Amino acid sequence: MKPVCLVMGAGAGIGGTVGRRFAHEGYHSVLCRRSDEEGLNRLVGAIHEDGNEASGHLLNAIDEGAIEERVEAVEADIGPIEVVVFNLGAQIGDRSLAGTSYKAFELGWRMACFGLFRVASSVAPKMAERGKGTILVTSATAAVRGNKGQHSHAAAMGGRRMLCQSLNAEFASQGIHVAHILIDGAVDAPDTLGKMLGAERFQELRETRGMENDGLMLPEKIADTYFHIAQQHRSVWTHELDLRAFSDRAWWNH
Amino acid sequence: MKPVCLVMGAGAGIGGTVGRRFAHEGYHSVLCRRSDEEGLNRLVGAIHEDGNEASGHLLNAIDEGAIEERVEAVEADIGPIEVVVFNLGAQIGDRSLAGTSYKAFELGWRMACFGLFRVASSVAPKMAERGKGTILVTSATAAVRGNKGQHSHAAAMGGRRMLCQSLNAEFASQGIHVAHILIDGAVDAPDTLGKMLGAERFQELRETRGMENDGLMLPEKIADTYFHIAQQHRSVWTHELDLRAFSDRAWWNH
Amino acid sequence: MKPVCLVMGAGAGIGGTVGRRFAHEGYHSVLCRRSDEEGLNRLVGAIHEDGNEASGHLLNAIDEGAIEERVEAVEADIGPIEVVVFNLGAQIGDRSLAGTSYKAFELGWRMACFGLFRVASSVAPKMAERGKGTILVTSATAAVRGNKGQHSHAAAMGGRRMLCQSLNAEFASQGIHVAHILIDGAVDAPDTLGKMLGAERFQELRETRGMENDGLMLPEKIADTYFHIAQQHRSVWTHELDLRAFSDRAWWNH
Amino acid sequence: MKPVCLVMGAGAGIGGTVGRRFAHEGYHSVLCRRSDEEGLNRLVGAIHEDGNEASGHLLNAIDEGAIEERVEAVEADIGPIEVVVFNLGAQIGDRSLAGTSYKAFELGWRMACFGLFRVASSVAPKMAERGKGTILVTSATAAVRGNKGQHSHAAAMGGRRMLCQSLNAEFASQGIHVAHILIDGAVDAPDTLGKMLGAERFQELRETRGMENDGLMLPEKIADTYFHIAQQHRSVWTHELDLRAFSDRAWWNH
Repeated sequence: MKPVCLVMGAGAGIGGTVGRRFAHEGYHSVLCRRSDEEGLNRLVGAIHEDGNEASGHLLNAIDEGAIEERVEAVEADIGPIEVVVFNLGAQIGDRSLAGTSYKAFELGWRMACFGLFRVASSVAPKMAERGKGTILVTSATAAVRGNKGQHSHAAAMGGRRMLCQSLNAEFASQGIHVAHILIDGAVDAPDTLGKMLGAERFQELRETRGMENDGLMLPEKIADTYFHIAQQHRSVWTHELDLRAFSDRAWWNH
Repeated sequence: MKPVCLVMGAGAGIGGTVGRRFAHEGYHSVLCRRSDEEGLNRLVGAIHEDGNEASGHLLNAIDEGAIEERVEAVEADIGPIEVVVFNLGAQIGDRSLAGTSYKAFELGWRMACFGLFRVASSVAPKMAERGKGTILVTSATAAVRGNKGQHSHAAAMGGRRMLCQSLNAEFASQGIHVAHILIDGAVDAPDTLGKMLGAERFQELRETRGMENDGLMLPEKIADTYFHIAQQHRSVWTHELDLRAFSDRAWWNH
Repeated sequence: MKPVCLVMGAGAGIGGTVGRRFAHEGYHSVLCRRSDEEGLNRLVGAIHEDGNEASGHLLNAIDEGAIEERVEAVEADIGPIEVVVFNLGAQIGDRSLAGTSYKAFELGWRMACFGLFRVASSVAPKMAERGKGTILVTSATAAVRGNKGQHSHAAAMGGRRMLCQSLNAEFASQGIHVAHILIDGAVDAPDTLGKMLGAERFQELRETRGMENDGLMLPEKIADTYFHIAQQHRSVWTHELDLRAFSDRAWWNH
Repeated sequence: MKPVCLVMGAGAGIGGTVGRRFAHEGYHSVLCRRSDEEGLNRLVGAIHEDGNEASGHLLNAIDEGAIEERVEAVEADIGPIEVVVFNLGAQIGDRSLAGTSYKAFELGWRMACFGLFRVASSVAPKMAERGKGTILVTSATAAVRGNKGQHSHAAAMGGRRMLCQSLNAEFASQGIHVAHILIDGAVDAPDTLGKMLGAERFQELRETRGMENDGLMLPEKIADTYFHIAQQHRSVWTHELDLRAFSDRAWWNH
């Protein structure tokens, strides 16, 4: 029975690609995303074509019980969850305070912060009992500095970062590796950046900054580091790291 | 007409004492707290006895509309809110992940993070129109580092800190001074620390660490710095500062 | 006998103005600077005209023994040093790595980092014996983030910030208040910014950003906060705070 | 011709082990350390026994010209330096301010901060010309927080961290990957921890915390991460990460 890698937020970007990578390394990847059944099937299909194991579920993480039931079902039907990739974002673009509704603010928190709390509450006790597990949390610049128009996003991600540290403080010594991975830049991801920019501008960005210029972060390469972190020996765990394109300035420089 | 200082979380500790200080400096202090009408009346009464202006309201900050309606009523009935002291905490003591219910986690966010968002949403547009205002946010060590048992508290406060930075990024140039004041230690506050420890242990702590040893942070002295921050000239605003007793170690040293 | 405020780096900007302010509050201010005897005399003269006490010394802080001997002489001839304002900068403008000589790199450290170590080594034992003292350290954005062209400056200031934390860890409980004051912006200071820009561009900057726009940090207003920090009750000391003009973005936002 | 990995500070711990790992991956490792020719020969010999390439040099990094000449000689005699592992520490144990001589303070800076500046000044122009290179900087908790008795160490490491950020800001876009690797815990390293503790206490620590408990950081496992960082695709570089044993608390929690 293969160990399971559960991906929350498995679009055609970091989530799906990391899932595919873990499948390639011998995990059964369970891909969960909110919408786009066709896209989900495409990702699962690609993993199957690689000759590896995966399954997919449409799941709205903010629905009551949705996360908890999925965790239970995966553990019962597929196997012990050894790795969680928590990849739910809450970026809604820049919005002034007046343009940020209570609902939007709460939604950001429900996905990016409460969502992780729910996953951890469901999964950590099982991992602790087994004495091992890994929770890889995709994070964003907004987790370390607030900015204009980022009221909802920064509040959600900042809370999430402190939650990661609190989870680490309780569970590291029980064998659970929590890593907070700060994605500090634009990812070559059709399902997030692509949708935010629209097809045309995204293609343009790819041609000018990405491609041979390597100025967009490549999900396959991000997956290398996610997998490395998950493989670190327990005497040398990384809790926090940043990732950005060589040609980009670090967040503290702009 | 006196300018108004609105205190959210006005117990016998930082909130009430800062309110009294602003009243002493010429503000009408509006003290809001969730419960203990007698305690509230005592605080308002003390300000009146000083010969200064204050009013008090019991208000559950997590109730829908409670914050918003209070802001409107104050502006209509008393005068323009020039200073907000946001002093709602979310410390519930150390609780393991298993011991932290979804409800507790959400409540922490509702008070400490969403509460500030609601106050800011209500008050910032008015302040921006007047070209001036001050929002003083009492914060805690949990805003800058997660810790064992602090899942709810740290997630709420970490989010709040990033929200403060986002508010500052949008509103500083419009004349609104947002300050994040990190209280890094135990405050000589009967209504919070006192209740958490119980009367006897609190008195003991006061006698050993506080009193002439100055090892408990004195609310009157904290109020000096709150008032100083509120009075800073707009060419030299502080966004973040820490406060702790001289005899205590800084959070990064323990 | 008045308590002494010793200012290292007393130009017509933060240093001289803070010294004048402490003199106004009852201290004898000892102003030390490297060069410009006329400028030094002007500052001391202005304090005398205020009816307050001051003396001045030309002193090259990197000379062997210069700091140590001055401290001894002040303690012997004038009185106990109660406050040190360490205001030596090491900003040499943006220089590429190739354009930063070993000498320039070392000089930055000698002034901004080793200089503070020497002052602290000379003064802290005396303060500790007396059970009280304050060391106010003017700092810069470069203490918290490196940047292009800031190799020397950032290395010196980053070291200095960690030294401040180490001094605080050893001496706070002995009654010495060490504060690291991050000046995050342009100061309306003829002797530093003025000289760096040249008279004409400085006047232009003053007219566009400063003056009624308050976009340049005013030394008199900075002095308000320095004095406040020095007066904080020992149950509520601030170790670190930032200062910037309301119209400026915080360092983490650009 | 193999690419060169130059290790500054190649003892039987992180430095020597990382050097051996890079040799195993196809680099010629040049091991430099201050003393213990026998130990150096043992490390070089072990790499040769692996069937890989290495050479060793005794080199006192604080000697004038020592670093610069070694870099030139390596480039001329062995090949282009592709990776630098800067592993010079400056930990001298806990010393009070009074117990920290000017000489000790300066020495810390000369090794840990100025040493990196000199290596970077020598090597970065060559790497930039070739459009590629990696500088891996071993760092310590003292780089992010000062502490009691750490005056010299923290000032040196704090400066070094800001220097790393400045180097990154200038050189990342030119193809040079600078990584600041925060070793937050005790390493199972005979040449550093072992010497500091003495043979007996070190063995005891190994038996209680290390060995099957994995509470001491294993250099071989640290080397995995160093190598991973050096291999990251340039669209996804890590600038800063921490490493600690799963059973240890993070620095911000103690």
